[in-house]
Amino acid sequence: MRFATRTNGTADGELILVSADGARGLALGTRWPNLLTAIADWDALLADAAVISTRLDAGEGDILDQAALLAPLPRTWQWLDGSAFANHGALMQKAFDHAPIETNLPLMYQGMSHRFLAPSEDVTFPTEADFIDFEGEFGIVTDDVPMGCSAQDALKHIRLILLINDWSLRAVAPAEMKTGFGWIQAKPACSVAPVAVTPDELGDNWRDGRVCLPLQVEVNGTWFGHPAGDAMGFGFHDLIAHAARTRPLSAGTIIGSGTVSNPNYDQVGSTCISERRAIEMIEHGHPVTPFLSFGDRVRMSAGTGDSLFGEIDQCVRAYGSAGL
Amino acid sequence: MRFATRTNGTADGELILVSADGARGLALGTRWPNLLTAIADWDALLADAAVISTRLDAGEGDILDQAALLAPLPRTWQWLDGSAFANHGALMQKAFDHAPIETNLPLMYQGMSHRFLAPSEDVTFPTEADFIDFEGEFGIVTDDVPMGCSAQDALKHIRLILLINDWSLRAVAPAEMKTGFGWIQAKPACSVAPVAVTPDELGDNWRDGRVCLPLQVEVNGTWFGHPAGDAMGFGFHDLIAHAARTRPLSAGTIIGSGTVSNPNYDQVGSTCISERRAIEMIEHGHPVTPFLSFGDRVRMSAGTGDSLFGEIDQCVRAYGSAGL
Repeated sequence: MRFATRTNGTADGELILVSADGARGLALGTRWPNLLTAIADWDALLADAAVISTRLDAGEGDILDQAALLAPLPRTWQWLDGSAFANHGALMQKAFDHAPIETNLPLMYQGMSHRFLAPSEDVTFPTEADFIDFEGEFGIVTDDVPMGCSAQDALKHIRLILLINDWSLRAVAPAEMKTGFGWIQAKPACSVAPVAVTPDELGDNWRDGRVCLPLQVEVNGTWFGHPAGDAMGFGFHDLIAHAARTRPLSAGTIIGSGTVSNPNYDQVGSTCISERRAIEMIEHGHPVTPFLSFGDRVRMSAGTGDSLFGEIDQCVRAYGSAGL
Repeated sequence: MRFATRTNGTADGELILVSADGARGLALGTRWPNLLTAIADWDALLADAAVISTRLDAGEGDILDQAALLAPLPRTWQWLDGSAFANHGALMQKAFDHAPIETNLPLMYQGMSHRFLAPSEDVTFPTEADFIDFEGEFGIVTDDVPMGCSAQDALKHIRLILLINDWSLRAVAPAEMKTGFGWIQAKPACSVAPVAVTPDELGDNWRDGRVCLPLQVEVNGTWFGHPAGDAMGFGFHDLIAHAARTRPLSAGTIIGSGTVSNPNYDQVGSTCISERRAIEMIEHGHPVTPFLSFGDRVRMSAGTGDSLFGEIDQCVRAYGSAGL
């Protein structure tokens, strides 16, 4: 099943089921006004969605207006972002001569969840001097997870899979990280691709709690990278178990993989500028690729043909410019 | 004005206005079902609350059942916890021979906000081996704050003041802090005193964005500390401006002061075990006070007579014991 959220004037938007070709959508009806409430009663939703799906297959539904699609969860109660691709961490450490992070556990911080940006809306920042960067990630949405849930049991709590751009401000991030408190200013709102899919939609590309699809990134229409999610050091089920050791997770919790990264970066590129700059540092002694400027466009999709998740395609703008 | 939230079977509870003596409450009515939605339209709420207040003064309303009171916001979109008492940080560094945290900015992490515990419910943890501790804090609730809000403008966005116990697991915290990612496992759900008050209720004890009242802590009926909030190194308005530099804050955002702490700790004590243990390390070479055991009770209130915020009075239990 593929779900999306359409603007309807409410903060949570209207939940719709999306056709297999991604072109049409049909509302789930009054019992399921939005995804945030639906996720808490998922099995019942799926039963109703099966009926709607038959109608979609028969040609019912509206042609989707991409500009009217919001993030699948325009806001939620909890966003926990991992950093589960060891290759990304290793490159950053080598380039900037950091000490390795001493832990055998997953890396994870809690980030801003009261707003996830729509996939086609302009994204605004106060200043280019903060070194504006993107991070291509996969994410999952859980239903209610009890405290102490094992990694094995956690797999069944993964209800939806997302494609996320975790916007990051690199001039601010190191100082915040150094405090040990994680990031506030360096991690403003993320953007999310319009279509949230159930794990079965990925077929063989959903393996061991990992999204084994290439994550495609373009900047201003030029290829930037397409590493796949296979190389994730911990699966999403491990990240859930880590997060739930001392707290229950509420339905609608989103957990992110961290920047998707592969060791064969010379062939597949990167999903953030910071990692490419780190590679340039290692190879040439200095970074070459600049961070983003106002007016730049960033596009993300997944897979090799039509993106299962639809696409994120946004322009970076100055906060306060032209009514933004 | 004094507000509380009463259990009514919903996740957000029912908003009520509390009488000046804290004994009676009256619902705000169907336009204002809960505090989370009301905080977004605060001036209109205050106008309606003024009418309800007159009725409360005239003797209307129910006697408050303390056991039916929830946290004023049983859940919200964002919880940002500061660490604004320099004395607390200095003691911890001295005792454990840490390097000082290098920053001129407020310290702040984002924590769990999908559940705040009711002031009288049992609080459960997986194991005593995590070193269970409390942290007495003051907190504020904002309405919608635009990105880039100045500290001066931030004062008017402070709509309510709270008393919070930020439960902390000390065996886990240092390893998480060392990653630079902040805390997930070390910071489970906080508890909140039942009454949320508008700043004017504090009179002269609300000064420069600080709650200048002693925060009273008892463990198993024995005094533990009563330091006041005056010594906060940054005011709450500074914490808002820090948080809002690169993100807007949604109505209902809670910002915490961090552990209340005073330099004259030999007279006023501490509001967390960890700080008392640090003082014992400095004075005697080793910590004496143990962390909490299952069955221990922790009580918090504020001021010297009847607590403006009501009180938090909870028993610590093993998760999974007797249906918990």
